[in-house]
Order: sequence, then structure tokens, then C-alpha cells
Amino acid sequence: MRLTYEEERDLVRDVLLREGAPGAPAEVQARWLAEGDLRGHPSHGLQRLPVIVERIRRGLSDPAAEPQLTWRSDAAAVVDGRRGLGPWVATRAVEGVVERARTTGVALAAIHNSNHLGLLAPYVEQIAAAGQLGVMLTTSEALVHPWDGAQAMVGTNPIAVGVPAQPEPFVLDMATGAISMGKILDHRNRDLQLASGWAIDERGEATTDPHAARAISPFGGAKGYALALAFELIVAAATGSALGTDVTGTLDVETVCNKGDLIIAIDCAALGFPDAAAATSAYLGALRATPARPETDGVSIPGDGARVRRARNLEQGVEISDAVWAQVAALRERDGARA
Amino acid sequence: MRLTYEEERDLVRDVLLREGAPGAPAEVQARWLAEGDLRGHPSHGLQRLPVIVERIRRGLSDPAAEPQLTWRSDAAAVVDGRRGLGPWVATRAVEGVVERARTTGVALAAIHNSNHLGLLAPYVEQIAAAGQLGVMLTTSEALVHPWDGAQAMVGTNPIAVGVPAQPEPFVLDMATGAISMGKILDHRNRDLQLASGWAIDERGEATTDPHAARAISPFGGAKGYALALAFELIVAAATGSALGTDVTGTLDVETVCNKGDLIIAIDCAALGFPDAAAATSAYLGALRATPARPETDGVSIPGDGARVRRARNLEQGVEISDAVWAQVAALRERDGARA
Repeated sequence: MRLTYEEERDLVRDVLLREGAPGAPAEVQARWLAEGDLRGHPSHGLQRLPVIVERIRRGLSDPAAEPQLTWRSDAAAVVDGRRGLGPWVATRAVEGVVERARTTGVALAAIHNSNHLGLLAPYVEQIAAAGQLGVMLTTSEALVHPWDGAQAMVGTNPIAVGVPAQPEPFVLDMATGAISMGKILDHRNRDLQLASGWAIDERGEATTDPHAARAISPFGGAKGYALALAFELIVAAATGSALGTDVTGTLDVETVCNKGDLIIAIDCAALGFPDAAAATSAYLGALRATPARPETDGVSIPGDGARVRRARNLEQGVEISDAVWAQVAALRERDGARA
Repeated sequence: MRLTYEEERDLVRDVLLREGAPGAPAEVQARWLAEGDLRGHPSHGLQRLPVIVERIRRGLSDPAAEPQLTWRSDAAAVVDGRRGLGPWVATRAVEGVVERARTTGVALAAIHNSNHLGLLAPYVEQIAAAGQLGVMLTTSEALVHPWDGAQAMVGTNPIAVGVPAQPEPFVLDMATGAISMGKILDHRNRDLQLASGWAIDERGEATTDPHAARAISPFGGAKGYALALAFELIVAAATGSALGTDVTGTLDVETVCNKGDLIIAIDCAALGFPDAAAATSAYLGALRATPARPETDGVSIPGDGARVRRARNLEQGVEISDAVWAQVAALRERDGARA
């Protein structure tokens, strides 16, 4: 099944409306899933919808919830997501920090009691579009083993960074695991070997067998583990959320989500550097012009690949797997029966 | 030559006093170099002193400068280091953000016109000791090649993170290069092969020959490069400092230093989570108790190694190489001749 961006977005929105989501949260959540598929990350696309809907039906997620943003101090807000849809909660928090950072220079939102955020890139793109630096951290279930440890104890803890530039902002959105659990499951389904360094088995030995994989390895060895851990600690300490194996509710349909999200915006103009974007753009150009290493395609900038895939998929639509389509069709039928 | 911590600190302080540094900046710079050796990072220890002194003598660094901290907005300060000693400038900035974050929740200092900071760990330790989360970024000369690029274009851009915990804070202090230039030079001097993945030669090919190495590889492949780049952009945009190959003055004795430093402090108590340190401590304990992977020593926490080396070297003193000692002795004699 091939869907245009608009078809996918409208499909998701309509399902969520029938589940009790008001128009704005439904629209934002729908755009986020459609962006996931557009940018070539199906693990953050339509395939998430069945879990999102099931969590709503079980009361683990409240699609009508309006997040409560409280400025505990001049530049730092605590956001109670009230079990709301992750992208809606985070979008409201982004609006809050961007506005506040104009006068405070830096502002922070510490989110708890929310749900899975989906892609992080679009949030920091919003911040960069406002002329600000955006940094976002979020935690997840413990899927990654600490360096030299034999069990999953750390989240895949992604970081996103947005920096204003022309013609496009710099956008980084990456997990600190060597690979996503979605990719390991995909290899399992297709009986493909994992790459070396992606995972360990139940005894803690490195494995390339997707069926034996029990924990994802951190990217970049001991340093990557150190960063993943630092991000986990920062988020939990700033948001009061759970740590390590206590984190639940971003993937399952059994538990309230207890991870945290942290959003920081820095206003370059407030700091006295309104022209930072020009310097950033020139440097990114110089990087792209760096001579390539032999047998490579040369230097790219984080975010380039996603933009290329997005442009292509906006034209061609995205291919939805039969398995995902069957699940989504069942949701729509069940919705129809209810309506 | 073996020196106790006090001997090394006093030696450095006395040299700097004779070069015109007031007592407090001389003391702080001296403590920072001595801490570098104590923690097993001689590249950030006494061997830096000759360059620091030569930069002072050439007017590239002003040891008597008092940094100028200006709150451009409620939570964000711009710090003009006025060519002062890096540790003194940054220590003053840390004091400023820690005090400010108590009321604003998050506060930031963007430093320009300073000098090499030395170890980052002690700054974030100061922030953590105040019950706050500390994050610090700084840029450096371009020594790292972008992923799939054949030339050095990105700094070794370290990150430091401090998180309050008992009995010791969590302290991360790591560069985003696979290895330091100091380590490559050390291998060159001792004619030892580099490890695979550390460096490329002038054609961009991976090399283990320390004499052929022309650029350091980023740690963690494309993801490590992406982070190094993100840190470079954040620092430059927030501080108005130089980017990429334009960065000079942390290693040489020819140019004013034009890199930037960014310090962020987040006050957990102001956010409503005064007990974050207890949760952090419990989680770090669980991580240490994770079963070890076969043939490893098991899980350690970033900062553990530095603490062990520090405790041992506080007792035993640190060994200073003959080459470094000869340079330092020459500085003292020259000082003596001047006095």
C-alpha cells in the first residue's frame, strides 16, 4: 500500500479523532507519524499507531489532555503531560521555551507524564526556525547494555540538536544505541544477520544472530555508553522521571509512561549574536566541500539524508508494509463499527 | 622527577606569579594543571605550562585579566575572557551561572576571548557540588576529520557533564575525537603503532602509522562526527567564536585564542526535584552491579578511573617526564634570572 503524506496524515488524524482526541492534538500526532515515514524512519511512522490507539483505549494515554506548563523559575518550566499525546505535549512545551528564551536567553522545559515523542527532529526544527539553538533529550526503556556489562540497563536515549542556518537548519536526531530495536526486529523478521557491534546475546557475548540478540550495544563503545548514561541522568534529574530498567510505557500497552523529556532553547540574538546563522551556513558549506575519503561518497551533514528522503517521498508517497496496513485497516474497521 | 600535588601546584603558581598573574588566577591555573597530572591526563598537566608562559610573554594571554561577565538577558551571560587564563575565566563563569540558576532554574555562560580550559571535569564538579546539573562544551583547533572526509575540519570538541550523586557526583569529561592529538604525538615519539580507527593519513586512508597520521577520526563513526559537529555549531553560535579551521590559539604561541566555551547549569531543586541525587546514586549502584561481559572487568561509571588515579597519585605523587621537567626547569631559571 502506498500513501501520500496527506493521506497518511488524514488517516491517522481521523482514527485519533474517533478515539477522542481534539482536532489539534490529533493533527499534530498525525503529522509526526507521517513525518516519520516521509523521512525514512518507519519505526517512528504509521506502525506506531496501533500501540498509540491501544494505549488510549486502555486509559494509559489521554488524547484529550492539555499539558500543564508551570514556570517553576524564570527560565525553567515543569510540564505535566497529563498522559497526553507525546507530540502535542512537546509541541506546546517547545512553544513555551521559544517564547521565554527571547527574554531569558536560555529556557528549559522538563516534561514528565507524557507519551512517546516520535521523531525529535521536527521539534528542534521549530526551535531553529525561531532563530534559536534547540537541544532535546528524551529517555526510553532500557535496551542498551552499559559498556562491559551483559544486560540492558540504559535507554536508547536520543539527542536532537537544531541550529539555524541557510537554506536549511542543521538538524541532528540520533539515538545513542548502535542501532534501533526496530532494526533488530526487522532483521529478525527477515532472518538477516546483524552487523558486528550492534548487539549482545544473553551471556553478554557479541552476536550477529538477530534471534539471539538481547541488548543493543551503545554506539561508539565506552564513550557512547558514557554519553547515553549522561543523557539518562540529566533527563531523569531534571524531570523527576524514572531511570534505567524502571522506565516503561513508550513501547508497551500495559503501563503509564514514566520517561522524561528535556527541551532547551538558546536565543542567539538575545546573547548578542544575531548573525550566527550566516557563520554556521558558511562552515557547513566548507564541510561539504571537504575532499572525500577514498571509496566514500564524501562528507554529508546530519539531516541531509532525511531531507532527501522526505523530498522524494513527498512526491512518490511512502510504501506501507502489508503487516502494518493490515493492523491499521483493522483499527479503521473497529472505529467504523464503533461509530 | 616525581612531584606531589602541592609541589606541582606551587611550582606552577610561582612561575605564573612571576609572569604577572595575581594570586587567585595563578592559584586556579596551577590547581588545574596539577589536577590534570593527578588524574592521569599529562596532556592537560604540567606539560602545558611552557605554552601558557610563552603566550603570556608574547601578549597573547593576559594573566592579570579579570573576565567581564555581562547578563545579556535574565538567564544568559556573555563572558569576555579578556585573554585571561582559561581556568580563571571559566571558574568565574561557573560561579556566575550557579548563583543565577538558583533563581532562573537554568543559566548559561557563553565565553569568548579566553584561553585553554584544561580539564573540564573540575568545572562540572563545582556545579554538581552546588546541587545542580552542569553541562560544558568547548571547541578546539580542527583536528578531526568529518565522517567520509579526508581533512581535519572539526575540533576535538569535548563535552563534560556533572550530575549530583552520593558519595561522588557523576562526572563525564570526554572529547569527541577517537583519541587525543597528545596521544598520537606520544605514539610518534615512542614509535608505537596507533590503534585501528584512530586516524587517517594525508590521502584520507585509515592508518596505524603515527608518523603518517594527519587527522584524528571521530569517535563512534558517523554518529560521533555528528555530535562533534553539533557541539561545534552550538558553541560558536552561542559565543560568536570561530568555527572549524579558523579556530586557533589553544595549542600555539602565535595567535590570540578565538574558540568559545559554553557552560550550562540546571538547578534540580528550583525545578522541584531536590531528591534527584538519591535516585541518581541508586541507579549508578545498579549499573555497577550489572553482570560483566565475558573477559571484561565489568561496568564502570565515567569518572571512576580518574578518581582512582587521583587518589593513588595524591599518595604517590606524579611522575613528570624528563622532557617536560627540562622545559619547566628552564622556565624557572629564566624566571630566576629575571627576578
